Amino acid sequence: MTDRPLGERFALLTDFYQLTMAACYFEQGMAEEATFSLFIRKYPAHRGYFVAAGLEEALRYLKTLRFTEADLAYLESTGLFKAKFLDYLKGVRFTGDVWALPEGSIFFKDEPVLEVSAPIIEAQLAETFVINAVSLQTLIATKASRSFYAAQGRPLIDFSLRRTQGTDAGLKVARASYLAGFLGTSNVLAGKIYGLPIFGTMAHSFITSFEQEIDSFRVFSRVFPQTTTLLIDTYDNMVGAKHAVQVAKEMAARGDRLRFVRLDSGDIAAISKEVRRLLREEGLDQVRILASGGFDEFKIAQVLTDGGEVDSFAVGTKMGVSADAPYFDCAYKLVKYGGRPVMKLSTGKVTLVDKKQIYRFYDEEGNFRRDTIALREEAVPGGAPQLTPVMQGGRLSGPRPDLKACRRHFLSEFARLPEVYKALKEPALYPVDLSPGLADLQGRVAQEIHHRELGES
Amino acid sequence: MTDRPLGERFALLTDFYQLTMAACYFEQGMAEEATFSLFIRKYPAHRGYFVAAGLEEALRYLKTLRFTEADLAYLESTGLFKAKFLDYLKGVRFTGDVWALPEGSIFFKDEPVLEVSAPIIEAQLAETFVINAVSLQTLIATKASRSFYAAQGRPLIDFSLRRTQGTDAGLKVARASYLAGFLGTSNVLAGKIYGLPIFGTMAHSFITSFEQEIDSFRVFSRVFPQTTTLLIDTYDNMVGAKHAVQVAKEMAARGDRLRFVRLDSGDIAAISKEVRRLLREEGLDQVRILASGGFDEFKIAQVLTDGGEVDSFAVGTKMGVSADAPYFDCAYKLVKYGGRPVMKLSTGKVTLVDKKQIYRFYDEEGNFRRDTIALREEAVPGGAPQLTPVMQGGRLSGPRPDLKACRRHFLSEFARLPEVYKALKEPALYPVDLSPGLADLQGRVAQEIHHRELGES
Repeated sequence: MTDRPLGERFALLTDFYQLTMAACYFEQGMAEEATFSLFIRKYPAHRGYFVAAGLEEALRYLKTLRFTEADLAYLESTGLFKAKFLDYLKGVRFTGDVWALPEGSIFFKDEPVLEVSAPIIEAQLAETFVINAVSLQTLIATKASRSFYAAQGRPLIDFSLRRTQGTDAGLKVARASYLAGFLGTSNVLAGKIYGLPIFGTMAHSFITSFEQEIDSFRVFSRVFPQTTTLLIDTYDNMVGAKHAVQVAKEMAARGDRLRFVRLDSGDIAAISKEVRRLLREEGLDQVRILASGGFDEFKIAQVLTDGGEVDSFAVGTKMGVSADAPYFDCAYKLVKYGGRPVMKLSTGKVTLVDKKQIYRFYDEEGNFRRDTIALREEAVPGGAPQLTPVMQGGRLSGPRPDLKACRRHFLSEFARLPEVYKALKEPALYPVDLSPGLADLQGRVAQEIHHRELGES
Repeated sequence: MTDRPLGERFALLTDFYQLTMAACYFEQGMAEEATFSLFIRKYPAHRGYFVAAGLEEALRYLKTLRFTEADLAYLESTGLFKAKFLDYLKGVRFTGDVWALPEGSIFFKDEPVLEVSAPIIEAQLAETFVINAVSLQTLIATKASRSFYAAQGRPLIDFSLRRTQGTDAGLKVARASYLAGFLGTSNVLAGKIYGLPIFGTMAHSFITSFEQEIDSFRVFSRVFPQTTTLLIDTYDNMVGAKHAVQVAKEMAARGDRLRFVRLDSGDIAAISKEVRRLLREEGLDQVRILASGGFDEFKIAQVLTDGGEVDSFAVGTKMGVSADAPYFDCAYKLVKYGGRPVMKLSTGKVTLVDKKQIYRFYDEEGNFRRDTIALREEAVPGGAPQLTPVMQGGRLSGPRPDLKACRRHFLSEFARLPEVYKALKEPALYPVDLSPGLADLQGRVAQEIHHRELGES
C-alpha cells in the first residue's frame, strides 16, 4: 500500500484565500494566462548566495494536483462556495508551464528561482505549496552548503532529524543537505526514499543501559565489527577514550578495526587533540575522530581554527532548522496577466515584472562574475541563460536529473563561486543588474500604475 | 483511499543508531524495562515557560508502530543486520507505558513533559519520532502563546503555511497555534483535519490581475458578501482605503456589510489610525482592521503600544518557524534500566534519574506558585501531580481529549500563570526544585558512577 500522489494529498494544503480568489476568477470568467515569479527579496545576515532546491517536490505536486471528493465535500461544508464552482474544481488540473533553475544551482536575491505560467486559477492555487516546497529545501541547502564550505573537505553527516520542524522537514533536510555536499544522514527513511548513504553510531542511553561503559563498547564492536563508532563522552572523555583503545585492541586481535570515536560535548578542539595523542601513542593512527553536538558552520570553523583534530562532523539541529535564519523572505508574485505586465507598489516590496530570464557572465577561468536579470525573450549577448523549461502544458519537459546529478551540479557551481561570496560572515554582495529591456518596462509599468491608481501625472 | 497509519509510514523515520543499538540489545538478550524522560534543558532567550503539545501525534505513532516488509527489505539491503534480528523487528509493537502532561499544560525547564517505560528496544526505537513530534508542537504552541498574550484579547489568525518548514510543520503549526489561543488559520487542510476555523482574504495578485484595484474589490464583495476582507496596500494604503469605503457603501446599499480591511505593509500603527479616522468619517465604524505582514509578539506589542487601531492580527512566518528560537534543547534520556536508575555525566548535560512526577503548588487564588520534581512514587504533600498515565501496555489509558478541550485546558492554565513569567522580554525564573527523594537518589547515582567509571572514591 503506497501513499497517495502528492498533489492529491495536498490539494487543500493551501491558504484559504487561494480558493476564494479562484471562486472570484471563476465567476468573472477570468482564465487568461498568469505568470508568477518565485524569488527571495533579501539576504538574511551572513548570506551572500542561495542554493536552489525543492523543484522536484514542486513538480511532483503540480503533476498530480487534484481535488478529491472528500476535499470538495469539506469545501462545500463551509457554505461559502457555489456548487458550480466546486464542480469546476473537481476537474482542475495543472496545465501550465514552469521555467526553473536546476536544483543545486547558485542564485542571488531578486532572481526568479522559478516562474509559473498557467490559467490564473491554476497558477494561483499552486502558490502556497510551491513556495513551501522550494523555500524549505533552498533554505536548508543554503545553510548546509556553509557547513560544507567550513569543513574544508571533511565528510559531513546530517544528524538533525529529532529536532527538525516536523517529519516532512526531517526528510527534506536529509535530501537538501546531501544535495549541498553532505556525505549522508542518520535518517533511515530518507536513506530509503532518496537513496542516501545512512550512518549511525550509538546514543548515551546505550552506554548507560550497561553496567559498565566498556561492556557497551565490547557488545557493539562484536555486533557491528565493520562499522563501529564508539561514543566516549558519557562519563569522561579520556576515560572513555581509554576504554575505546582497549576495545580497539581487542578488535584488532580478532582481525577487525575500530573506525571512529565520537566526541559529543565539551571543548572539542582541546579534547580531540588529547584523544588523537592517546590514539597515536597506542598505535591506533587509523581510528578517526567524529565530532557532534551543536555543530554548524561557525562551530566547525572555530574548532578547525583552534587546531581541532576532527576528521568528520555530524551536523544537527542548527543546520536542520537553519537556526540563524530559519526562513527566507521568499515571494511568489504575479508579474503578468493576460499579456499585461503587473506589479504592486507596497512599501519596500517591489516586484520585477513580466516573464524573465537570468543571464550569468563568467571570467576566463569559468568563475561567476555577475548576473543580469532580463525579460525572457530579450537578447543578452555573452550571458548564459540559467532558467530552463521544466514543465510544458502540465507535463514534464523531459527526464528529470536524479539527486546525485543535482549534487554534482551543486559541487560544480559552488566551485565556480568566488570565495568572497562564500565568507561565513559578511560576504561580499554579488553584482546583479537589470537588462535595459527589463529596467525600461519596470519603469513604464510603475509610471502607468502611479498615473492610473494614484492619479499622479 | 486513506493514508497509512502514522507508525507504519514512519517506522523508518528514525536515526539509524536506534536500529544498530536495537540489534545489540537483541543479540545480548537485553529486554528489561527502560524508562526515558523527555524534557527541555534550558530556556531560549525570553522564554520563561513552555506549552506542552504534540502528545496526540506521539501516541498515534506509538499505537501503530510497525515495520513493513518494504522497510525490512530496505534494512536487509544495508547488509548490516542478521536475518534473525530483522525477523524479530517484523513483530515489534510498542507495548509500554507512557505518562505525560496533557496537551495545553504549562511546564518548565528540566520537567519531564513525557516519560516512556517499555522493553528497551521499543522505548529506544520511539525516541526520534517522539522527540520530533513533541518538540515541534511544543515549540510552536509556546511561541504562539506569546502572540496570544501580546494581543490582549484581539483575535489572531495563523497565516504561516507558505513558509513553515515543510508540509507537516504547516499542519502542526495551525494545530499548535489554535491550541495556544489563536482563533483559526488560513490553512485549509488543517481546517479539514483538525476542525479549525479557516479564514482567507485576498492576495496582492488578485488585485493586480484586475485593470483597476476597485474592480477587484467589487468582484470579491459580490462573490463573498458575508466574509469580505479588502487588502488595501497594493498601491497606496489611503487610496486603497478610499476604494474600500466606496465598495463598503455599495455593499451597504445591497444590504451587505464589509467586515474587514487588511493592512500588510508600512507603519501599521500610523496607517491604522489614519484608516480608522477615514472609516469613522464615512460612518463605517463597524468595519474592522486586520493587520498582517511580519507580525510576532514583539511587533503586536509595539503596534498596540504605539496606539495602533488594529482589531485582529494575522501572524505568519515568525510564529510559524518560531523565528527567534527555532528549536528547543529537547532531550529523551534513559533514566532507568532494569530497575537501576542511570544518568550520563557529559559536560553541562545532567539528567534527572528514575521515573518522576511533577508536583505543582498554587497560591490562594489558584495561581502557580512553584513546582517540585519528585520520584514518581514519592509523596509530596500539598502538591498537585501533573503527569498522568496516557498509555498502558501499548494501549490508550482512556478516551483522549479533543483539541478544543486541550485549548480550554491551555486557556485555564495560562490564566493561572502569573504575569511575571509571561513577560515578552526577560521573564522571571519560575521556581522549580527537586524533592528530597529525587535529590538524594540523584546524588547517590552520580557518586556511584564516579566511583565505578572514573575510579574516584
